[in-house]
Amino acid sequence: MRELDRQLKLATGLYARGEAPIDLVLGVASRAISILHERAEPERWAECDGKDYWVFRADGRISRPYLPTLFEASELVFRRFWGFLIDSADPDARRFHLDVVDINRVLYSAIGSFAICYDLWKSKSRKTPGTFFEVLLGSVLKLVLPRHQRAGHVTLPGQVENVSTDIVFQRQGVKGGLVVPAKITTRERVVQPFAHQRILDSVFGENVFKSTLVCMSEMQRDDDRGAANAICVPGTIRLFQMHLARLSGIYYLDPPARYLLPDVTQVIRVATLGDLLAADLHALTET
Amino acid sequence: MRELDRQLKLATGLYARGEAPIDLVLGVASRAISILHERAEPERWAECDGKDYWVFRADGRISRPYLPTLFEASELVFRRFWGFLIDSADPDARRFHLDVVDINRVLYSAIGSFAICYDLWKSKSRKTPGTFFEVLLGSVLKLVLPRHQRAGHVTLPGQVENVSTDIVFQRQGVKGGLVVPAKITTRERVVQPFAHQRILDSVFGENVFKSTLVCMSEMQRDDDRGAANAICVPGTIRLFQMHLARLSGIYYLDPPARYLLPDVTQVIRVATLGDLLAADLHALTET
Repeated sequence: MRELDRQLKLATGLYARGEAPIDLVLGVASRAISILHERAEPERWAECDGKDYWVFRADGRISRPYLPTLFEASELVFRRFWGFLIDSADPDARRFHLDVVDINRVLYSAIGSFAICYDLWKSKSRKTPGTFFEVLLGSVLKLVLPRHQRAGHVTLPGQVENVSTDIVFQRQGVKGGLVVPAKITTRERVVQPFAHQRILDSVFGENVFKSTLVCMSEMQRDDDRGAANAICVPGTIRLFQMHLARLSGIYYLDPPARYLLPDVTQVIRVATLGDLLAADLHALTET
Repeated sequence: MRELDRQLKLATGLYARGEAPIDLVLGVASRAISILHERAEPERWAECDGKDYWVFRADGRISRPYLPTLFEASELVFRRFWGFLIDSADPDARRFHLDVVDINRVLYSAIGSFAICYDLWKSKSRKTPGTFFEVLLGSVLKLVLPRHQRAGHVTLPGQVENVSTDIVFQRQGVKGGLVVPAKITTRERVVQPFAHQRILDSVFGENVFKSTLVCMSEMQRDDDRGAANAICVPGTIRLFQMHLARLSGIYYLDPPARYLLPDVTQVIRVATLGDLLAADLHALTET
């Protein structure tokens, strides 16, 4: 874990200076996968929405639930698919050419293994998995948006305050850009990306900036009932999308079944992160 | 503490059924003040913005910082001023006639003593002080708005979802109403009242509903530096007020000095809860 921390700090430091430390991100993720392989025991936990969720156990602790069908437990195989992903980056088409399923699997394994390591051995550092998710996503996106500038906020003309979103890609000389709030899970913070989009609409005009919320999943372990639950707020998302501001989409690595029902998808695009990276990104960004 | 809990539960139950259990609220607050008097030691903690903050200590625990100049430590005196407040309710003028300073003192003592008891002897029930604050405020407001209906949400026409705000007062047959989100402190949740106001503006038209955010204070104990800090986000509040939605005001029992500076007050009314109850409420509500 100390080596994991060291590599994460290196990656975070370079990322904060505007770089895309994709090899360090790979290093962190493969290390997390190999730590789990060596020191933790996978075990079936519970079913939710027809999917079987598992947990890792180690040293008397239990991890968050994860989906083994999306999780690559072998470091070697993970590294191969990571390579396929990187090699499939097409900056001219602003997309990756790898299969959607494989993109989701490699990114879910990367962030999932890291978050699970923190559940088991560093459960007090609750925010760190979110930081790694942001560095991972910002670095991967940069591979297909090399001519865009990445920042962590949008500067507002004539305002002291910035809009602090997690990831923003903008092209020099082009008004607007793509805002990518990245969250492991949303919980009550789902209001933030909608509120930020509304502010950007108000300051720059509607639809000049576009927001896509990217999340890992909404799964939570329920120890009282031995269950795995997806904590969903479909009515809230409908309400925000219709009356607060329009997001361009919500992209999950493991989308909650509830958000794929028509009452939600009629008002907002809900898909996987693989769909964003293999298809939607092109139309959401400028040349 | 068991008797305090019992009375709170009674009060919360009646409140949830639409009543304004003002005598039970008095019972809870006086009991909290007398418990502190008997079982805890007040002690100077630190200065912040020219105000001296104290804490209570008991059984090896330390409470949140409080302002002794606003805190009535004698149950007898507290009960007298509580009586003055209740007696000064003027439903026709939709205001209280007690001095602003005395209103703030009696309400700060009521919620402050309760929150401090929970800090010292029930620190795991973090949300309970917020619940009591809502019951306290909703019940006190009802004294001067007897012909208004109180609810915990605004029903939206043609929507499954409601806007869940803490307190809403509406007059039968009148479109709109007064929304009163009540928070002990805001922290990162300050976005909520602005987002809700924007949704209400979008659904009902601008300014049909009015929102006033009511808070106790933003003070936090800083153990590392032995300090008391007011956690403020003036730029965020400016930004939200200018580009998300307009609140009619933010009312504190102990307003942070930072929010009384012109860059904030130029865009939003910031005052004490006493100012709301003794003056502003009239113009914010309908006959």
